[in-house]
Amino acid sequence: MVNSYIQKGDNPDLTELRKKASFNTEELAIFLAGSKSKLEKRRQIHKFVESKPELKDAKPISFMTRSELMENEQRKKMYALKYASEIVDNSNLEEMYFYNDSIHNQDGQPFSLHDGMFRPCLEAQADDEQREIWLKKANNYEINGTYAQTEMGHGTNLRKLETTATFDLEKDEFIINTPTITATKWWPGNLGKNANVCIVAAQTWIKGKCYGTNNFIVQLRDFKTHEPLPGITVGDIGPKFGYQQNDNGFCKFDNVRIPRRNMLMKHVKVDREGNFTKPVHDKVSYSTMLYVRAVIINLVGEGLGKAVTIGVRYSAIRKQGELNDPNKEVSVLEYKTQQYRLFPQIARAVAYLCLGKDIAQQYYTLLKDLQAGNTSYMTDLHELLCGVKAVVTHEVALGIEQCRMSCGGHGYSQASGFPYIYGAYVCACTYEGENMVMLLQCAGGIMKSANKIATGKANELSHIFKYLVEKKNKKSTISGNSIKIEEYIECLEVNARKQIFDGFKEFSECILKGMNKKTAINESAISMTKCARRHTKLYIAKSFAKSVIELPPGSLKNVLLKILELYLAYEVMESPSCIILEGFIDDSQLSLISKRIKILLSELKDDAVSIVDSFDMTDRQLNSILGRRDGHVYDNLLKWAQESELNKTNVLPSHHKYIGKLFEFRKSNYNSKL
Amino acid sequence: MVNSYIQKGDNPDLTELRKKASFNTEELAIFLAGSKSKLEKRRQIHKFVESKPELKDAKPISFMTRSELMENEQRKKMYALKYASEIVDNSNLEEMYFYNDSIHNQDGQPFSLHDGMFRPCLEAQADDEQREIWLKKANNYEINGTYAQTEMGHGTNLRKLETTATFDLEKDEFIINTPTITATKWWPGNLGKNANVCIVAAQTWIKGKCYGTNNFIVQLRDFKTHEPLPGITVGDIGPKFGYQQNDNGFCKFDNVRIPRRNMLMKHVKVDREGNFTKPVHDKVSYSTMLYVRAVIINLVGEGLGKAVTIGVRYSAIRKQGELNDPNKEVSVLEYKTQQYRLFPQIARAVAYLCLGKDIAQQYYTLLKDLQAGNTSYMTDLHELLCGVKAVVTHEVALGIEQCRMSCGGHGYSQASGFPYIYGAYVCACTYEGENMVMLLQCAGGIMKSANKIATGKANELSHIFKYLVEKKNKKSTISGNSIKIEEYIECLEVNARKQIFDGFKEFSECILKGMNKKTAINESAISMTKCARRHTKLYIAKSFAKSVIELPPGSLKNVLLKILELYLAYEVMESPSCIILEGFIDDSQLSLISKRIKILLSELKDDAVSIVDSFDMTDRQLNSILGRRDGHVYDNLLKWAQESELNKTNVLPSHHKYIGKLFEFRKSNYNSKL
Repeated sequence: MVNSYIQKGDNPDLTELRKKASFNTEELAIFLAGSKSKLEKRRQIHKFVESKPELKDAKPISFMTRSELMENEQRKKMYALKYASEIVDNSNLEEMYFYNDSIHNQDGQPFSLHDGMFRPCLEAQADDEQREIWLKKANNYEINGTYAQTEMGHGTNLRKLETTATFDLEKDEFIINTPTITATKWWPGNLGKNANVCIVAAQTWIKGKCYGTNNFIVQLRDFKTHEPLPGITVGDIGPKFGYQQNDNGFCKFDNVRIPRRNMLMKHVKVDREGNFTKPVHDKVSYSTMLYVRAVIINLVGEGLGKAVTIGVRYSAIRKQGELNDPNKEVSVLEYKTQQYRLFPQIARAVAYLCLGKDIAQQYYTLLKDLQAGNTSYMTDLHELLCGVKAVVTHEVALGIEQCRMSCGGHGYSQASGFPYIYGAYVCACTYEGENMVMLLQCAGGIMKSANKIATGKANELSHIFKYLVEKKNKKSTISGNSIKIEEYIECLEVNARKQIFDGFKEFSECILKGMNKKTAINESAISMTKCARRHTKLYIAKSFAKSVIELPPGSLKNVLLKILELYLAYEVMESPSCIILEGFIDDSQLSLISKRIKILLSELKDDAVSIVDSFDMTDRQLNSILGRRDGHVYDNLLKWAQESELNKTNVLPSHHKYIGKLFEFRKSNYNSKL
Repeated sequence: MVNSYIQKGDNPDLTELRKKASFNTEELAIFLAGSKSKLEKRRQIHKFVESKPELKDAKPISFMTRSELMENEQRKKMYALKYASEIVDNSNLEEMYFYNDSIHNQDGQPFSLHDGMFRPCLEAQADDEQREIWLKKANNYEINGTYAQTEMGHGTNLRKLETTATFDLEKDEFIINTPTITATKWWPGNLGKNANVCIVAAQTWIKGKCYGTNNFIVQLRDFKTHEPLPGITVGDIGPKFGYQQNDNGFCKFDNVRIPRRNMLMKHVKVDREGNFTKPVHDKVSYSTMLYVRAVIINLVGEGLGKAVTIGVRYSAIRKQGELNDPNKEVSVLEYKTQQYRLFPQIARAVAYLCLGKDIAQQYYTLLKDLQAGNTSYMTDLHELLCGVKAVVTHEVALGIEQCRMSCGGHGYSQASGFPYIYGAYVCACTYEGENMVMLLQCAGGIMKSANKIATGKANELSHIFKYLVEKKNKKSTISGNSIKIEEYIECLEVNARKQIFDGFKEFSECILKGMNKKTAINESAISMTKCARRHTKLYIAKSFAKSVIELPPGSLKNVLLKILELYLAYEVMESPSCIILEGFIDDSQLSLISKRIKILLSELKDDAVSIVDSFDMTDRQLNSILGRRDGHVYDNLLKWAQESELNKTNVLPSHHKYIGKLFEFRKSNYNSKL
């Protein structure tokens, strides 16, 4: 078959492997991108961006200070907006994502939050008059807005936010105030330096009564001078693990007055007399969260795709040790340990990209359901996605590190791109719902469903829970040299079922002891997180299986079936204790799965480079010397290193100030006591 | 009991918890340090260093460029050497470690490799004449040496190093040369900018014959001007994941001539006529490796200790959500998930510190054995320690990340110290033997022992393998509400035994198919790594148990027994499938272990802060706003952030160049197409 990523002059080891592809990389690339038109649009955008010198980094980002990074992104952003109309449609979210991604990469840019939070939030919560004032300016990039919810002292527990918005009936204004240090807004992207407007979440006080948290538009900086306005203390929160080019910021408000009509009033309202009206229901915000989670799954799936692209390509050219022929060094990709480190990461990246599409699809279905007044499935889906978010982001983080370590010492250099990738994606474990909290939220939903079964209401279970009451076989039917996809899935079902029933028992005992639900969940939390993981993993497996099984027969389906089987086998073997305890599977059946893993690793070896090629990541996106498409690693590693700030002079200016002096002193004081 | 880390004015949440300590922190601190005198010496050194303004960082390291970091360390090193004689004995390795650690922290300093590799290598491999010339200068800090083995293209497979040292019989010189780009020396610490001398590993060619890799002293830079000498291209390899203040370097040699006597000749020799003589045996290098691994275990144990100190202290002061009382926010330490994330890390940190001492002890015993001509145990121990190195460094890396994520968003900020800690310790997974290679080396040894059993030579097993043939119970004796330490250990024994016998079967089948040992190990590598992990983990558990059990009864032993039991229970539950498959343990027994974990987490909650206090880390060592001893996190977080380079001006100078212009343009071109 054909690998269309081969070019003349490439590292011959890579070309040799690419020629062995058992499938057509274009077909896989289309499958992973979602459609041919998407793939082509993305490539068009990348090509366009590549052609504009103003959109290039001034030098490799590893060698920039944070001020230089900020300037670099500001410059690129200005030109990006200038050129946008030539290549993308500003109202097409996906095109804008491709465009921004190709220019700024994952590490943020001056309008990240403006595009990702400020505009969507206005869309959802501003009334018509407010839209006319604020959304128009925002969409026209006359202002740069961000969204400030998290405070220094409170993130997850929103009800405890301390920032206040107190209504001044006389002047028809809200007074925004930061009453304590812990109330300081902390973390919002672009808040530190770039944004001049901010949606601020604050406790709403009217006539001495608190109406909970609502959102207020606050201007932070002068629109001309960009200086902070009176009463506003704003700045950057300092360097982080990653995202150095984003000015995540802090902000303190010293009784800042804003018009009453700066409160976002599409749903809640406060009138001239201070009467507060609440929206009837707030199901819409749920669906937004669903959307954000679909985006995150796709995003981190791409992140893992990047990491494993680098790991696999480099492993194909890195030589180390001999196996059969004592005179021939083999590539490290020949080692089973290397395959076992990398190929399950390929499988997970593919699975998560499929999952992202699945969830986006469900989101659109749900929107229709909501319009038809049907909200029954939403809560189940929402809780499931809490678990999915936690499981996927955590496994992506672990997977990126496995890919990095598989590259040995060079993986530790920023030249590899890995430190940058890890920093940019590991934070997904924490943002948009800390993972442990997410797992417990998912578990809460599972307990509700388990309770339905316990109370004879199994017929009320939504389809994602049906497996809890649909026992098929008492004993796995795995035998012989091939294992069916359904046989793996059944293992995962039995596994989840036992974990969930055990967990429900533990949880119910706590309830019986008189604990409230929160305390009971906490008391049984270790089991609860396991329930959430098993349930979630089953869902991901089914979703992935569905995407592959529905393909027409052919070489694309063949390679995807291998990837899918490796994914499933790896999942089953990662925590088989429940299925063993259930007597569902025995030692010899587990050995058969292990054998299948070994065979699949061998079978995928010659396809591995072509599979990662099909993630269709440009060298610019990878930002990695090790992962270059052409495989010319070593000479470029040396070139890269020569840009180190320490290499500007042969001798560091500071040398003679200290160590040079030390040497002189030491020579003249031979054997002086140290 | 007494927590002696309490001070007036501390965060009251911390003080309250500290007052609940069930033991005396001084006793635990002494246990962890190894002895009272060590603890006191370390504190004395820290106090001394703290008192010298020249040994302080110029500003928080997160805000320094790499050039500033280099200068900062050079300055501190100069003063450190100036003051050393006032407080430490330069010949006492441990005192020097405490001293350097307190001044430079883990991220390297200008003489890291000089002290850690160059001097020890001269000690081990220089003959008397060479010692007189080089070691004297080195010990007197008149020169700064490093050790260059790794090349760009080869790290693990030393036999394939490409740098050559060709003997010129006529001039009595060796010619050091870098024949290819991949032969460029790459990674050695301090090579880029600081070192002026280097021990270079090179293939030794004499009269057209290669004698393998040997070590040569090469002067890199002029001793006065510090400029690189002719033929030498040297520089920094650029930024990494961590260790930014170390100038890990590259070096190319263009036929650089050195005297024949610059070859290190204590063991190998090349005489004036070019006759090469090899040492009789090279067992000594093994023992050096053992020593280095003991050092690494201790080092990363401390790293995990730092991380969990930060995590636990911060969790005690961070408030989030309500449990029983809907009006009272609780500290996150109250959550089972938080305890389950953090307390096993406490247990592992304690276990690894005990293990480090155990291995150091074994190293000294081994040295005596070697002197008595007894080398039988050395290989077994060496192979075991390969596994120990891999297991411990990997779990420390995972553990540090768990601690970081347990701190939510703030853990992601460099203010937490975590990004710095992770960068400094995760590389231990890669250096001094890549972990996968280490596991396979360990497995190779295990297979030898399994083969002894298979061939009826069980009596030849060394004591660490005796458990393979000493079956005690067919079924675990665990029952009721308490579980004995031996009962946990037996689980780990049965677990390792099954894994090893299964692995041996798989390995043997490969051998029977005609594979050589290397290929057979590779073919069964997935099982092999599991064998190595189980065997190693059993050893660590036994070593930890021994350290605790031999203590006299009392409150110290009581708390350590809880930590030990949590350690063991967590290990058993992490991969119980083998003991279930063996029928050794059943569902109800596993539930008993889970129950014990829950109880232990509760029991350790009030002691957790006092336990981490006893790691006796100074605020300077932790380098963390979140982990401050006094618990005053939030105000200091704000202070820290204000030092961000982006906060030097309210408006970034680059703003008006780009985004300011953009705003102006947009306002005047309302609704212009984007």
